[in-house]
Amino acid sequence: MSSDANGNGRNGTPFADCPLPANDAQEILLGHGSGGKLSARLIETLIVPAFRNPMLDRLDDQAIFSVNGARLAFTTDSYVITPIFFPGGDIGELAVNGTVNDLAMGGARPLYLSLAFILEEGLPIADLERVVLSARRAADAAGVHVVTGDTKVVGRGSGDKIFVNTSGVGLVPPGIELSSRNVRAGDAVLLSGTIGDHGVAILSQREGLEFDGSLESDTAALHDLVRAMLESCPGIHAMRDPTRGGLAAILVEIATRQRLGIALDERAIPIGETVRGACEILGLDPLFVANEGKPVAFVPEDAASLVPAALRAHPLGRNACRIGTVTDEHLGFVILKTPIGGDRVLDLPFGEALPRIC
Amino acid sequence: MSSDANGNGRNGTPFADCPLPANDAQEILLGHGSGGKLSARLIETLIVPAFRNPMLDRLDDQAIFSVNGARLAFTTDSYVITPIFFPGGDIGELAVNGTVNDLAMGGARPLYLSLAFILEEGLPIADLERVVLSARRAADAAGVHVVTGDTKVVGRGSGDKIFVNTSGVGLVPPGIELSSRNVRAGDAVLLSGTIGDHGVAILSQREGLEFDGSLESDTAALHDLVRAMLESCPGIHAMRDPTRGGLAAILVEIATRQRLGIALDERAIPIGETVRGACEILGLDPLFVANEGKPVAFVPEDAASLVPAALRAHPLGRNACRIGTVTDEHLGFVILKTPIGGDRVLDLPFGEALPRIC
Repeated sequence: MSSDANGNGRNGTPFADCPLPANDAQEILLGHGSGGKLSARLIETLIVPAFRNPMLDRLDDQAIFSVNGARLAFTTDSYVITPIFFPGGDIGELAVNGTVNDLAMGGARPLYLSLAFILEEGLPIADLERVVLSARRAADAAGVHVVTGDTKVVGRGSGDKIFVNTSGVGLVPPGIELSSRNVRAGDAVLLSGTIGDHGVAILSQREGLEFDGSLESDTAALHDLVRAMLESCPGIHAMRDPTRGGLAAILVEIATRQRLGIALDERAIPIGETVRGACEILGLDPLFVANEGKPVAFVPEDAASLVPAALRAHPLGRNACRIGTVTDEHLGFVILKTPIGGDRVLDLPFGEALPRIC
Repeated sequence: MSSDANGNGRNGTPFADCPLPANDAQEILLGHGSGGKLSARLIETLIVPAFRNPMLDRLDDQAIFSVNGARLAFTTDSYVITPIFFPGGDIGELAVNGTVNDLAMGGARPLYLSLAFILEEGLPIADLERVVLSARRAADAAGVHVVTGDTKVVGRGSGDKIFVNTSGVGLVPPGIELSSRNVRAGDAVLLSGTIGDHGVAILSQREGLEFDGSLESDTAALHDLVRAMLESCPGIHAMRDPTRGGLAAILVEIATRQRLGIALDERAIPIGETVRGACEILGLDPLFVANEGKPVAFVPEDAASLVPAALRAHPLGRNACRIGTVTDEHLGFVILKTPIGGDRVLDLPFGEALPRIC
């Protein structure tokens, strides 16, 4: 496998083969926000090096630090999804759940959220009210408190309806150590349910497409599911929440950054029938399509049957299954075993076809 | 004083006299983000009630909560300033300093920041790099670590170059209890230096105006100044950081919400000569113009000389002075004693003429 084909460049930096934009101005492209190689390159070459510190360098979904013997998780996400109301949710619920989930992926119990709006002049106040109430319901459901906030307004054409930032603070229980750095060869790769639901629901709404069967975002708060998983196996190595860039982005990132191989069984990956059909029509690979409520867990082999049982006993994990294994072969690469018995290297696109999916 | 003239409505809710927009659609106006009455009304009638909890209800610059016996401060702000580069700073430095300051106003030592970008397609990567490096320098100078982040991209015309959200976590030392709720009649009102510098610098740059003398944003990290103030008097009642809406917005908010009077001596309020001249030409009242590095402190009368001395010994407080007194007269109102011996009720505009000032 050459470095050109797989995103693992000659100098050892992941995504080093990914060019900056070819135009002379070197401008930001939509792809820089997509969760593909352009995103990774921007973050890894421009942003992370500027602030270099061990907490940021982990590049997990959250930072973890200690204060007075308590381990706290801290995370931030901005939401720019369009449309702001979509089947299965809206930007307010999405923002609360997304930040709850970034905390939960560190094993933290979510405690407090901030909520910052950037509103475009002309936004109907009724739309803002609907988003605010939806965020409140999501916070109530997740048992977190919104304790601080901010509201800015920009002129027409300088924003797009509503952008939301949610940051969050949570408490990591003693004995829990979840980080992508802890993933080891031999770990089972577990997935809590079907993939692609969020991205396909958004894209269908944008394009005005209708399919047989319902398409809904899977936005959900995952902290309680994570709690159940950790009760079944406190020694889980890592959890990640595959959003933009899909399941593929998380797996490729871990394989390249941790220098491990990941072998996936394509037949084992649950995909809803409607999502599968919509992806075929839209020309999308569901592995690359955004999710908003489907954690991936890396679990020591000896607990590989306990955790799926705990997942399946939870309403958010009924379709949980093992989708693969971390190996010490094909280091740096994710290999997909296809239903017809072939092997396919999973590689990230430079950008992707779904901007503003979260 | 009638309720129409002063923003303190008949039903006892501050800003209840402030109408929602007159147009039928009830849309977001630029004024909803300006720090005036429209901002206050939006926050107090739509956002705060939805999330009602004691930490949010304080409406200080930060929330404070306890974890394992440690008191932590948590705050968020989004920055949408235009232009992103301005005399005296840029959006990156402003975002770091602003969040450091919101923590400092709670007496907290700033520890960790998040940094989330919303980038517009077409932004020169060199501009992003400049903002990132400036944020890094500001973080280094303030001794805080950027430990988590996010990057989103929106299409041309759906954003405006760069929006930044910074959230922050800090540690409040034992014995420090700063909150607007603690302000009492008899407190001295102290100000660390000249007002209006930030807003006038931004507006002059936007309008392409030049004035004799230099106009620069006063953006600065205030945590070390606050530390020196608290060392001189740990019993300071409250500190606030007057940004959009200016000094007036903070004082009117405290007077109306805490049902106190504030008597200000207009001659005592320091205003730079260039800012004063520019405000006259631009038709602005510097009391309403944004600052980014000038804390206001409410201090028990018996410490009213100690704190200004500590302020003046610090490079960021050389022009510090007492500007007024909290009283149990004219409850709910800020009264300005003018140089010609008259009294003027300080009232907030509905919106203001300076959108996107921070």
